[in-house]
Amino acid sequence: MKNNTPLFGGIEGGGTKFVCAVGTRPDDIRAETRFPTTSPEETMAQAVDFFKQQERNFGELASIGFACFGPLDPNPTSATYGHILPTPKPGWTNADVVGPLRSAFGIPIIFDTDVNGAALGEWRWGKGQGLNTFIYLTIGTGVGGGAYVEGKLLHGLIHPEMGHILLRRDKNKDPFDGACPFHGDCFEGLTSGVAIEKRWGQRGSNLPEDHPAWELEAEYIAQALADYSFTLSPQRIIIGGGVGSLEHLLPRVQQKTRDFINRYIQSPVILEDIENYIVHPGLGNLSGVLGALALAEQALPEN
Amino acid sequence: MKNNTPLFGGIEGGGTKFVCAVGTRPDDIRAETRFPTTSPEETMAQAVDFFKQQERNFGELASIGFACFGPLDPNPTSATYGHILPTPKPGWTNADVVGPLRSAFGIPIIFDTDVNGAALGEWRWGKGQGLNTFIYLTIGTGVGGGAYVEGKLLHGLIHPEMGHILLRRDKNKDPFDGACPFHGDCFEGLTSGVAIEKRWGQRGSNLPEDHPAWELEAEYIAQALADYSFTLSPQRIIIGGGVGSLEHLLPRVQQKTRDFINRYIQSPVILEDIENYIVHPGLGNLSGVLGALALAEQALPEN
Repeated sequence: MKNNTPLFGGIEGGGTKFVCAVGTRPDDIRAETRFPTTSPEETMAQAVDFFKQQERNFGELASIGFACFGPLDPNPTSATYGHILPTPKPGWTNADVVGPLRSAFGIPIIFDTDVNGAALGEWRWGKGQGLNTFIYLTIGTGVGGGAYVEGKLLHGLIHPEMGHILLRRDKNKDPFDGACPFHGDCFEGLTSGVAIEKRWGQRGSNLPEDHPAWELEAEYIAQALADYSFTLSPQRIIIGGGVGSLEHLLPRVQQKTRDFINRYIQSPVILEDIENYIVHPGLGNLSGVLGALALAEQALPEN
Repeated sequence: MKNNTPLFGGIEGGGTKFVCAVGTRPDDIRAETRFPTTSPEETMAQAVDFFKQQERNFGELASIGFACFGPLDPNPTSATYGHILPTPKPGWTNADVVGPLRSAFGIPIIFDTDVNGAALGEWRWGKGQGLNTFIYLTIGTGVGGGAYVEGKLLHGLIHPEMGHILLRRDKNKDPFDGACPFHGDCFEGLTSGVAIEKRWGQRGSNLPEDHPAWELEAEYIAQALADYSFTLSPQRIIIGGGVGSLEHLLPRVQQKTRDFINRYIQSPVILEDIENYIVHPGLGNLSGVLGALALAEQALPEN
């Protein structure tokens, strides 16, 4: 047993709220705080203050992981590394969110998307353990996906934006125009919490389980999961988020995804064990902040 | 300069024909042969005979790369490694195609999909050089994609089957039912050479450039490329194959893909330089067999 287990900072930066934590693993969270997302300056200053305070309580942090809403630049060799890219969110376009952490702490800062962070958290302690290729998808206010592929978090050109694929739809059955400001009726535009509220005139949380909203929702989600399965060949798909975590939705999504794939991917987990192919997060709604700690851990030499 | 550059064998195993080569790189192909794909036993015996003959001419091979039509099992730890998985192609379901090579040669055999092989060939000597994440897509008799992701060929659960994603379509404009035996009107079912011939009653090679077939084709291909861009975040998409390589199709596909993405991926290569985002193969129609040599090269200790 090491006595000096390094202590990590983690930030789950969401569009609505920030969650910061200090700890080493799920059962060793020393401190946590959450506050609303306001301006980048104010929000990041609050995060810095929190970690400074915790360093006084628990000693120096080894590194900080920052899993943030996007689009963002996660490429350390890029001139805009650590910045938010153009976003509809007022005040955040081109904001340098890593800069304030770097100035305040002389330790590694690991910056990635919220969904890549959640994927890494699930890989470290949740339903991604032992896998080398899987997807973490969140369906909530928006829809986003992170991916761990052949043993690494996927960035590629910038990072995936899985929520924006186009789905086949029957406008006679569902004439809704969609809620995505960029693509109208893309996957996110058809299935996000915002889309549900716009289409049905009330929040998803008010719709009973036998409301037709959910059959439609399951149909669209399943189609997206089939497309991801063909494109990315994941060993598992983990779905979280306010909508994605609904218990009554999961079995419908599982069955319909299997139907869309139609035995074309000859793997036992899809053919006979779809309940283990499409799953809810092992870390519940803590995937994000624990994922940020897992990102921080990646900065250690042995990682 | 090393005097003893290792010599490699490469097999591009297609559903119609096999191409085998011996060499070290594109400008050093010592021997090549092609023969029709018949039964697995006969076809693999021909490949073995060819390599045995070349070893008599040029000395021992260091390894053999085998880029094969699928679905197949490329996982070396699996019980069915080196086998073809269930396929409509008569006689090939569950055929052990690596076995005959292993029995005949005491050297490493590297087995992967034809499209992963082509991707690796493009990475080594073609349009994938210097990239860490890109897609190689072929649109010909069928549609298939390989991917090099964060510096590795993507396998995941088995391997991608990118040709089978569902696309949005307007059945009033295009009432064709599709040609995919598994999914009807998936991407392959709508755009493959087989689909073109079924829809228009003649082969694509007989249709003039201004035939409405091509506008429809470009529309479907572009939609798929946008979906891949969102899901896999490639730095580039390389399109080959009999249909995919058509010169007049490329500019339409580039423009329509950019339209589908609609400035949501804020990367200069997509916003301002789409001609360098969607490209034809650097190795022309030799991506496959050169890719097989590149696979073989991966067996060397330094790889």
